[in-house]
Amino acid sequence: MPTILGQNQYGKAENRVVKITRDGATHHIKDLNVSVALSGDMDDVHYSGSNAHVLPTDTTKNTVYAFAKKHGIESAEQFGIHLARHFVTSQEPIHRARIRIEEYAWERIAASDANSRFIGADEVKHSFVRKGQETRLTEVTYDGDGWQVVSGLKDLVVMNSTNSEFWGYVKDEYTTLREAYDRILATQVSARWRFNWTDDDQRMPHWEKSYEQVRKHMLQAFAETYSLSLQQTLYQMGARIIDNRAEIDEVRFSLPNKHHFLVDLEPFGLENDNEVYFAADRPYGLIEATVLRDGVEPRIPVDLTNL
Amino acid sequence: MPTILGQNQYGKAENRVVKITRDGATHHIKDLNVSVALSGDMDDVHYSGSNAHVLPTDTTKNTVYAFAKKHGIESAEQFGIHLARHFVTSQEPIHRARIRIEEYAWERIAASDANSRFIGADEVKHSFVRKGQETRLTEVTYDGDGWQVVSGLKDLVVMNSTNSEFWGYVKDEYTTLREAYDRILATQVSARWRFNWTDDDQRMPHWEKSYEQVRKHMLQAFAETYSLSLQQTLYQMGARIIDNRAEIDEVRFSLPNKHHFLVDLEPFGLENDNEVYFAADRPYGLIEATVLRDGVEPRIPVDLTNL
Amino acid sequence: MPTILGQNQYGKAENRVVKITRDGATHHIKDLNVSVALSGDMDDVHYSGSNAHVLPTDTTKNTVYAFAKKHGIESAEQFGIHLARHFVTSQEPIHRARIRIEEYAWERIAASDANSRFIGADEVKHSFVRKGQETRLTEVTYDGDGWQVVSGLKDLVVMNSTNSEFWGYVKDEYTTLREAYDRILATQVSARWRFNWTDDDQRMPHWEKSYEQVRKHMLQAFAETYSLSLQQTLYQMGARIIDNRAEIDEVRFSLPNKHHFLVDLEPFGLENDNEVYFAADRPYGLIEATVLRDGVEPRIPVDLTNL
Amino acid sequence: MPTILGQNQYGKAENRVVKITRDGATHHIKDLNVSVALSGDMDDVHYSGSNAHVLPTDTTKNTVYAFAKKHGIESAEQFGIHLARHFVTSQEPIHRARIRIEEYAWERIAASDANSRFIGADEVKHSFVRKGQETRLTEVTYDGDGWQVVSGLKDLVVMNSTNSEFWGYVKDEYTTLREAYDRILATQVSARWRFNWTDDDQRMPHWEKSYEQVRKHMLQAFAETYSLSLQQTLYQMGARIIDNRAEIDEVRFSLPNKHHFLVDLEPFGLENDNEVYFAADRPYGLIEATVLRDGVEPRIPVDLTNL
Repeated sequence: MPTILGQNQYGKAENRVVKITRDGATHHIKDLNVSVALSGDMDDVHYSGSNAHVLPTDTTKNTVYAFAKKHGIESAEQFGIHLARHFVTSQEPIHRARIRIEEYAWERIAASDANSRFIGADEVKHSFVRKGQETRLTEVTYDGDGWQVVSGLKDLVVMNSTNSEFWGYVKDEYTTLREAYDRILATQVSARWRFNWTDDDQRMPHWEKSYEQVRKHMLQAFAETYSLSLQQTLYQMGARIIDNRAEIDEVRFSLPNKHHFLVDLEPFGLENDNEVYFAADRPYGLIEATVLRDGVEPRIPVDLTNL
Repeated sequence: MPTILGQNQYGKAENRVVKITRDGATHHIKDLNVSVALSGDMDDVHYSGSNAHVLPTDTTKNTVYAFAKKHGIESAEQFGIHLARHFVTSQEPIHRARIRIEEYAWERIAASDANSRFIGADEVKHSFVRKGQETRLTEVTYDGDGWQVVSGLKDLVVMNSTNSEFWGYVKDEYTTLREAYDRILATQVSARWRFNWTDDDQRMPHWEKSYEQVRKHMLQAFAETYSLSLQQTLYQMGARIIDNRAEIDEVRFSLPNKHHFLVDLEPFGLENDNEVYFAADRPYGLIEATVLRDGVEPRIPVDLTNL
Repeated sequence: MPTILGQNQYGKAENRVVKITRDGATHHIKDLNVSVALSGDMDDVHYSGSNAHVLPTDTTKNTVYAFAKKHGIESAEQFGIHLARHFVTSQEPIHRARIRIEEYAWERIAASDANSRFIGADEVKHSFVRKGQETRLTEVTYDGDGWQVVSGLKDLVVMNSTNSEFWGYVKDEYTTLREAYDRILATQVSARWRFNWTDDDQRMPHWEKSYEQVRKHMLQAFAETYSLSLQQTLYQMGARIIDNRAEIDEVRFSLPNKHHFLVDLEPFGLENDNEVYFAADRPYGLIEATVLRDGVEPRIPVDLTNL
Repeated sequence: MPTILGQNQYGKAENRVVKITRDGATHHIKDLNVSVALSGDMDDVHYSGSNAHVLPTDTTKNTVYAFAKKHGIESAEQFGIHLARHFVTSQEPIHRARIRIEEYAWERIAASDANSRFIGADEVKHSFVRKGQETRLTEVTYDGDGWQVVSGLKDLVVMNSTNSEFWGYVKDEYTTLREAYDRILATQVSARWRFNWTDDDQRMPHWEKSYEQVRKHMLQAFAETYSLSLQQTLYQMGARIIDNRAEIDEVRFSLPNKHHFLVDLEPFGLENDNEVYFAADRPYGLIEATVLRDGVEPRIPVDLTNL
């Protein structure tokens, strides 16, 4: 045969699972979107259509829901670990499982005051509003020998309304941009960070606390960096995470430069002293880089987006 | 001519304006998406292509940016009032202006602790993260005589994990649904509310405070209603707003019933005691209704969405 | 009670139904997205949560699928008529039904030549590729007395690369736009047209042929109009439909002016003789109008979009 | 420093360029979305914010528009080659350029008949309607030594209404799926194919003809394969391309299994003989694999999507 099969994977994508946990009248929500991808001894199904090694994608979906009951959902990472281990250890032809999870955050609706003519405040421990803002991400990969856990987030939009400059750059025959000494810096953060937990014998990170701390450090580095370029800000965000979180060895960012152009109001006899901006859609600068703990090999793929 | 022109309107849509206001080192953001629609004596441009009565849509865009400087942006509603008044009073052929605005909320990034090795906490009064969650809306219409202001929001996702039932409904030959005595009730709120301010001689509402209060009452009514149908919850949400906010006479809701189906875990030997749900996308119930102050004529259009 | 219920409607939205019809080895597809909205005697469910008059939205979904089998899907319009009539005539509390349908078009995959080493050409009468391009729309409303059918389309993107000008417009203090004597005119057509069929005793239009002809006339009017403004082009598109299609009395358009700006290449020593354009996203002009057969009352709502 | 910089790239993303070429009264359109990513000696800008090696993303945008004039747009691939070569050879710190392009296809609007009361048929050689359907893709990478060109497409939706089975799969404790002997097979094709052109001394492929032929072979293989699994169909699609197109060595597919579930109409006393289907959104099977010319090393990344 002049053609051969290369890397392949399959599974059920985007299983939307909501798990309610009851602590008396107080309910807790976990709201996930779980995608399963399995690899292994799958030549036959591609070459001849024999499904003898194929666990149906429908079964991988059922497993997600069954595991939400059997193991609960302590964190997206822990849930992914349960699933990945199951697929690899229970099915001989499956050699590798990758579980990707998006998580949507919810917060409680504040109760109204006590003399409400509606049901009392203590009844609303089951009422939630979705937080919006970023989507939390994780990807757990297991091949029977070791683990790789990469967590992250997307769609976290941030802005500094000052403390950003851009000048001293290369100028060629196609350069018309004017240097900026006080500009808006805004981006929609897409980030992934890799944990150095790889082995069942190692102590596992506290996944929930780790996420909160990484997010905090990233936001603060963005806020506190006096920026001469978005690249510099990106590096500070990554370095601050690795400096502060021993469980993380590598961070990858994809940061669109969400341009805010100062509007020329002179034709209308008005001065625009860094007050009125046009928020542009396309095109946008796209700045992407990895920050690593010194001595570590990079393993997060370069492209977080498809553009 | 066998055909004639009916209702028509034109203008520049989706002007993205960001206004930064500086209060010393502390910055404030207003982030709007402004759409202008003008109507009036516009037969000629349709019949013959004569633009003699047409203010270019490009000019309506420029006006949005110039007004952000001249008048500032105190609230989306107030900004819309400035714009609508200008177009109708400054151009003879324009008899009516409708300004629609989306507003995106931002919150400050919390500063890191004092002994940060980065720039100190007091420097980050210019750093923001977009709130996500709902998009605030307003529509201001002016025809030279009176005003109509309809505000609202979209994409506010809420969930009650209990205190919802659905039974006692009509059963016909196509009915297979089983009655539910404890279900999840979730929806993505799209709402519009109309102010009874119509006249320059009337005292204007406090637009910012009104929004916060309406949002709060709506959320609390959702949380505190023991629901026998989404229609009942919708009505309570509207009634609570009108009961508590004298400035509002009419509320319209479009509430998709975001179904959460209990997963059947019996085939796997597991019980599902209202714990594990499949969050479905389509189809979904769609519940829409207007709630009015008694004696008032409805004026908000029936269709908030195009489905 | 200080508040009362206004207009309301409910039903299952976005029921995705695919119907395969077999004509020997040759298959035919109808691919619809059906949304049901019912109104009637529904005070109780809003005021008290009593569902005694409520046919569940789940039942309306089941009815869509059952009717696809019972009546087939000859056209979206005809299918909507079957559904609307059923809901109003079979349920006493339901006084009005509105069925909205999106239709996705498919075309056959061309067979490969006869000496293919794969299965022969005559076997692929069951293989299709989705056409993309516009989405066809219809809305059927029935109140027990009469019918209203409004069909249409959205997302049909068209462009004239010349034969468009824009000059002679009003200039005020905020006008900076330069007149254009040869520009690109491009838009993404959203259109709705109302049939004058209202009564079961009238002869029904041939819905499929009508759609094809309306689309053809609309496209040709766009192509053949030498345009002095998008308003003029819009009117010609509407007038051409009404002039040529006796079954249609009213057309509404929402036409975003998809701006293509000539790029200034002078700084690079290059001339740009209407060759290289930047296709902008936002903001955009938005031109909306109704064209009517003379003497007819307009009934299509003014807002086809929510901006 | 405990952290170091890893792989990084930057540039202007999503430059929307439309190029009109005039051949007398007949116009031709190329409509592209071009994203530039540059890598090289960029440590300083990340570590210290020095932009001395940074060609601004704004300049990369200007270059796209200037090159559309200077070189024209013969094909997306050829245009990407011009751009990539320019960035690497003109700027010493830039060692590698990657140009990604999306292309939107247009077709001419058919003229109306000769006795039209509008402008004659021969005038509409400048009028176009966007084809919709798939988006064509290419990615050109140049590092000064050699080239890599990967083309592809996304969002091509195809369906076989029969000739698809799925049975004989693994059954574990979470398997509930019933075997299928006649089902709908539908997918939304995302594909990338790599050319073996890597060197300026090699004869370049005819990029436009190659695209048409690859698309045709892919569609025909989908149509003509009697399918026992989507994996088998995928492999046939890839093998057919490589067998027929000597210029291509590797193909990667990401094929969501767009499930069409047969609706159970028995409760309504109706038989459903493979006629009425529910088209589901989520979850969906996701089948991904590479097909290679024997002896060739794979180079297309494994993840075409982020799920």
